[in-house]
Formats: sequence, structure tokens, C-alpha cells
Amino acid sequence: MTLDEDLEEAAGAVVTDGTVHPGVRRARAWLSRVTEPGTVDFWRFVDDVGPVDAVRQLRSGRAPERIRSLAGARAAQDETLADLRRAERCDARLVIPEDDEWPALPLHALTVAVADEPDDHRRQSERTRAPVPPLALWVRGPARLDELADRSVAVVGSRASTAYGEHVAAELGHQLGERGWTVISGGAFGIDAAAHRGALAAGGPTIAVLACGVDRPYPAGHGALLHRIAEEGLLVSEWPPGAAPHRHRFLVRNRLIAGLTRGTVVVEAAARSGALATARRAKRLSRPVMVVPGPVTSALSVGCHELLREAELGAVLVDGAAHVLEEVGRLGADLADVPERPSGPRDGLSDLAGRVLDACPVRVGVSPERLASIAGCEVLDVLRVLPALELADLVQWTGTGWRLTPPPEEPPRAGR
Amino acid sequence: MTLDEDLEEAAGAVVTDGTVHPGVRRARAWLSRVTEPGTVDFWRFVDDVGPVDAVRQLRSGRAPERIRSLAGARAAQDETLADLRRAERCDARLVIPEDDEWPALPLHALTVAVADEPDDHRRQSERTRAPVPPLALWVRGPARLDELADRSVAVVGSRASTAYGEHVAAELGHQLGERGWTVISGGAFGIDAAAHRGALAAGGPTIAVLACGVDRPYPAGHGALLHRIAEEGLLVSEWPPGAAPHRHRFLVRNRLIAGLTRGTVVVEAAARSGALATARRAKRLSRPVMVVPGPVTSALSVGCHELLREAELGAVLVDGAAHVLEEVGRLGADLADVPERPSGPRDGLSDLAGRVLDACPVRVGVSPERLASIAGCEVLDVLRVLPALELADLVQWTGTGWRLTPPPEEPPRAGR
Repeated sequence: MTLDEDLEEAAGAVVTDGTVHPGVRRARAWLSRVTEPGTVDFWRFVDDVGPVDAVRQLRSGRAPERIRSLAGARAAQDETLADLRRAERCDARLVIPEDDEWPALPLHALTVAVADEPDDHRRQSERTRAPVPPLALWVRGPARLDELADRSVAVVGSRASTAYGEHVAAELGHQLGERGWTVISGGAFGIDAAAHRGALAAGGPTIAVLACGVDRPYPAGHGALLHRIAEEGLLVSEWPPGAAPHRHRFLVRNRLIAGLTRGTVVVEAAARSGALATARRAKRLSRPVMVVPGPVTSALSVGCHELLREAELGAVLVDGAAHVLEEVGRLGADLADVPERPSGPRDGLSDLAGRVLDACPVRVGVSPERLASIAGCEVLDVLRVLPALELADLVQWTGTGWRLTPPPEEPPRAGR
Repeated sequence: MTLDEDLEEAAGAVVTDGTVHPGVRRARAWLSRVTEPGTVDFWRFVDDVGPVDAVRQLRSGRAPERIRSLAGARAAQDETLADLRRAERCDARLVIPEDDEWPALPLHALTVAVADEPDDHRRQSERTRAPVPPLALWVRGPARLDELADRSVAVVGSRASTAYGEHVAAELGHQLGERGWTVISGGAFGIDAAAHRGALAAGGPTIAVLACGVDRPYPAGHGALLHRIAEEGLLVSEWPPGAAPHRHRFLVRNRLIAGLTRGTVVVEAAARSGALATARRAKRLSRPVMVVPGPVTSALSVGCHELLREAELGAVLVDGAAHVLEEVGRLGADLADVPERPSGPRDGLSDLAGRVLDACPVRVGVSPERLASIAGCEVLDVLRVLPALELADLVQWTGTGWRLTPPPEEPPRAGR
């Protein structure tokens, strides 16, 4: 079936059982290759018209001029079947926002942040810094992406690390892994690798977010490590199989490391390190920035100390997993409108949070979209308050949707 | 001449030329031995009735019961002449608040803080934590105490330091010394000694504030170091010559290290180190607390990292002298009542600061007491705003009093 035929069928299909039409996945695969990710306008276009119509408009030349110029000559090509086959060959798959597996909850921070970008593309953030959600994610490995991302922490730092930094990163990865938290990093030499290895050694989940295809071990020296992560955790990339690790892609990729996690820890970073960029991206997404200090005599700690000196950043010094969990375990600020004398978990909830809570069913979980329609608010608003409600243990994710957290079972009463 | 005769003469003496009657100094010498320093009520009693009358009331039994109980049996003794002779033999002297050399400006923070202590002595801070100004200071060395304390920074830390901590402390002492800043510390092993040595190596001024007599090298292993400080800088103590370094005296002493300086730097400190107490004392005196981080794997940096994690403390991470001077060079917050668009140095001054500034004479310097009577405010208020006015270069200390800073000389105009 040609791409265009498949899209036409997908556009006309009426899906009721929650499955995703293969044409939708093919559309997202095509979008993941037709332009570099991280462009505000391109994401907005797809968000507005949907993936299937976005592809059809681009292929027929009906898309707006600005969007067509972003796609360029690639709009005429179609490598979707080859890409999907190539993924399948290495046990990878394309996870898309239409899937249950999509990590909607962590990524909602990007959706919220991209709304602040101006309309005029000349005034929008550069692609290497713009907070744009991914259009799709190529995922390699046995675990479910949404489940692993749910309780995850980014551990990042310099490639040219010292023995000290590697020791601390490995220890941190190990301690987080032991506690069932997912360590997310970039798979690079140095701190990234030490953090992944620490997590693997603890039998904990770990995700490497790559700036190249998930079938392409980069750096080459990390073939064995990345292979192991693919077997026990996940390799994730916005770029299709075979994509090369171009320099600028690392910067674009960093927003996903910050965006998928509940907070970012910088272990060792020189003065102008890429890890600092990831930390600032976490800050922009209102996620805690945590920093491991080091000797002031070490050039590899200069960047860390810079972060700790930036008062506006509000970075917190951490010396291990206990400190990290203190930060990422905190309630979101969205939960309450300055609560006064809260005496129960529902007291102090904002009006919005209360409405979303009221919208949650008792037994079968429902989607954020459904919650929004019941609560009478935007999906974005629902996504804003859900994390805090979850952390307050008021709602829970069933694997397919949100519901109220069941009350604890009454212990049987002892007779008097 | 007996003490009582000397006091009687001092009480009746009319001093007009600014010199201090020897009986006043003898009274302060007596007070420095009759009770342990740091007691709120004892300091308030001396402040209220003056040193001469304080001694006479104590010796005649007319002092309030509470004050007499603080002095105890020692009130009957008099070792003042022996103490003053003993000081003289090691080139030391007793500097008292009535002297020009008294570091009134730095110590004013203690005077301000002690005013907050409650009247009921059972609710006052413990002596090891109370912010009480010293009654007198035994000073050994050639330099003037007020001049050295004017631009000074405390560098403190653990005795059981590592090579890393000592390196950093010595480097910091050296850099501060090179820039003409006085390094003040406690003369102890480890970080203290490294900071003193760094300052001495740079030919910079340094002060060791001791918890024993200034004639008594303690620790014994620091005989040579303390001797050198006495020759090139100053040894300072609240305790009279021969006093032993009792354990609790170190804690009482720490308030002077914090109080004499514009800010305190902690270089290495274990979890419950005395250096942390000094840092918290600096904070209570509204002086910047600065902290040098270290490897998170080092037990000697645990205390430092604790300080940096205490949000309320507002401690700033520093990696060297440049960072330190950024903090201690700042304008005091007392200067302005939220200035709006200041266009000249006088704009944005609080009403109080403006009145004190107006009270300053153009040529001959006058005392804070005189400024207070002209400005129609308390001496405490004058002491509160003077540091900020000085930092703004609006007033200057002539060596004998305060006056307006003379305008810069007009550069000769070049002919057209």
C-alpha cells in the first residue's frame, strides 16, 4: 500500500476500540524524517491538523508556505516502510502520541512550555533551545516507555569526566536503580555512561536518549553498553533508524532528557558544558535542577558551581540519591492555591485540581482528554494538575487511564 | 594605687582631650577577668552604668543580685595590675570601647543583635550562642585592630582538614592578603592555620582570635605560627593573659570571628563542625556566609554542603577570593528604602541615612554619639547606617571620627 493510500484510509477510518490505525503510525514515521525535530511551527501545524492531514497537506502542496519550507524537498520522498522495517529488525518500534505507551504525563511540560512561544517564527526560540514536544519517538527495548519515564531522573555531565565524577554518577545511578527509579541520560562517554552502568548494576531501569537512530550505536565505543541498555532498558530517539549523530542534534535531544524526567542532576560539568544546557532546559520546564559539587580545584566542577551560584536557577546541591529523591518527590506547585490550615488531602486544592479530581472515576481509568471534557477545562490544564494529584496519592494511573486512588483497606478490627 | 582609688579618680576625672583615664582601662581589665564573656545581662549592666561604676558597684556589693551572682567570689579579687603588666611583657595591650582603636564599626552588628535578646535571662540565648559584644579585647601585635578589622574576612574550617581543604584555604588567604584584605581566623590546626599562612605568605594582614590568653600559644604546636602572627598581624582575645583554652570558650570566641569580619567563608567542615556555628553566627549578624564546596565523597565537606542546602541561611558557594570579594563588597541593605530610579548617590537614602549624612561635618571627624545627637536618633541607628554610607563613599573615617567624604579634586581643564 502506498503512503498516500494508507493515509486516505486512516483519514476515513472510524476507530472505536482504542487501537491506532497503521496509517497514523506511518504518518508519524514520515513526519519524523521529513524535518528536523524541535521546530515550534512544525509541531503546531501537526498538533492543529493531526498527523494524517499534516502529511497529506505537505505531500499535496496544500500546507502553508512556512511549513512547506521546513520540509523542503523531502516532502516528495517516502521511506516510512523501510524505516519501520529497519526498526523492527532491531526490535524497535515507533511510539506516537496516539499510543497508550506515549509518556504524555512527563512530556506535558513541553506542551505547556511551547504554548509560550510567540507566533512570529522569527521571535521564537532557536531550534536547539525551543521547548517543543517530539512528534514521535523511536524506541528500542522491552520495557514500556511511559512506565519507565514515570519515575525517572536525568543524570547528566561531562564526557571528559574525572574518576571522582564517574564514581559519583555510578553510585547515584546505582542508588536510584535500587529504589526503582529510572536513570535517563544520553549514552555518552563519561558521566552519562557511569550513570547508566550504575543503574544496570543495580538491576534498575535506564533509558539512553540518543541523537541518532536507535539501531546505530553511537559512540561506537559504547556498542556493548547501548546493546545492554536496549536489552534491559530502552534506547529512545526522535530521529529515524540510521540517522547520524550530527552535532546540533545533541542540543535538540537534551530537551527530551530534561522533559522526560522529574528532575535533572548534573554531576560534573566544565564551564560551557552541554550538561548546563540540559539543566537550564529542566528549569524552563519547572523541573528541579540538582547539582553535585566537586573540588573547586577541578575544571570539571566549574560548571556545576556556576549553576549553584545562579540564584535565579534555584539549583539544589545534592550529594546522593537521598537528596535527589527529596527534590523529585515534592508536590507540584500547581496543586494548591496557598492552602490555609489544610486538614485533609483535598483541602487546599485549587478549584481546577478539585474539578479534575471530581472528574476521575472510581474504578476504570479514563484519558486526560475525557477528564478535561468532564471537568470542563482544557486537556493542558488536566495535564498540569495530574502530577500533583498523583503525588498526593489522590489519583492513580491504571495503565490505561486515570482513576481515584482506592481507599486503603480497613484493617480487620480486633474484638474487645 | 589600689583599684578602688584608681576607679574613684577615674569617676571624678573630666577628660576633654579624648584620652582615656587609666582607671577606665583598669576597670575593663577587671571586668574581663571577673566573669566569662558572652553574658547578655552582664554586658547590659556595664553598658548602662559604664565600666567604672560597674566595677565599683560590684566591689561594694551594690550591683543587682543577678549581676553579682555572675561575678561570684572573683569580685573580691584584683589582678588588674598583674594582667596589664603581663600583657605589656609580651607587647600586648588592652583595647577598650573607649579607645579610638576599638573596632566599633564591625562590632556594631553585635550591639544591634544583643538588643533583640529578651529581658528575662532565662529566655536569653545561651552564652555559647548569644550575640554579645566584648567588654574589652586583649590585643597583641603591632597593627591597629580597627584598621585591620575594617576590611576583613573570616576563613574558618575543620582542624582535621584534608590536603584539598588546606590548599584551598591557603590559596584563599593568599589571594585575600594580596588584595589587602585581612584574614581573620581562630589560629587552630587545619583550615585556620592554612588561611593564616596563606595571608602571611602574601605579606597580608591576619588576625588570630584566640580562646585563651594572647601570651599563651595554643595549640602548642602553633607556637611559631602564632608568634609570627603576633609580629606581623594581631592576636586577639577576650580572656586576660594566662587564661586557659577551655572547651566552651571556643564557641563563645566564634562570635567575635563572625562579628569582626564582613563575611565568613567556611572551607572544610564535617557534619557537626564548630565552623558551622561560626557561619550561623555570621548569618545572625546579617553578614554573608560563603562556602567552598568539595567532593561529596569527603566527610570533611559534608558540613559545607549542609550549609549550602539550608535555603534559609542563604549561603553562597564560592570558589576563590574573587567570589568572596563579590559578596563582602556589596552595599548594606540599610542604605535605601527601596530606591526608585536613583540618579545620584544621595537619592534613595532612607530618611535616617539622610539625617546621619546631614549630621556629618565637612572637615573634622566626630563620634557616632555626636552624630546621633545632631541627627536626633539613637547611637545604634547611626551605627546601623554608617557602614552603608561609607561603602557608598559618602562618609569617611578620619581615624578619630566620621566626616563627609571630600569631593574629588577637579582635574585641571585642558585649554581649548
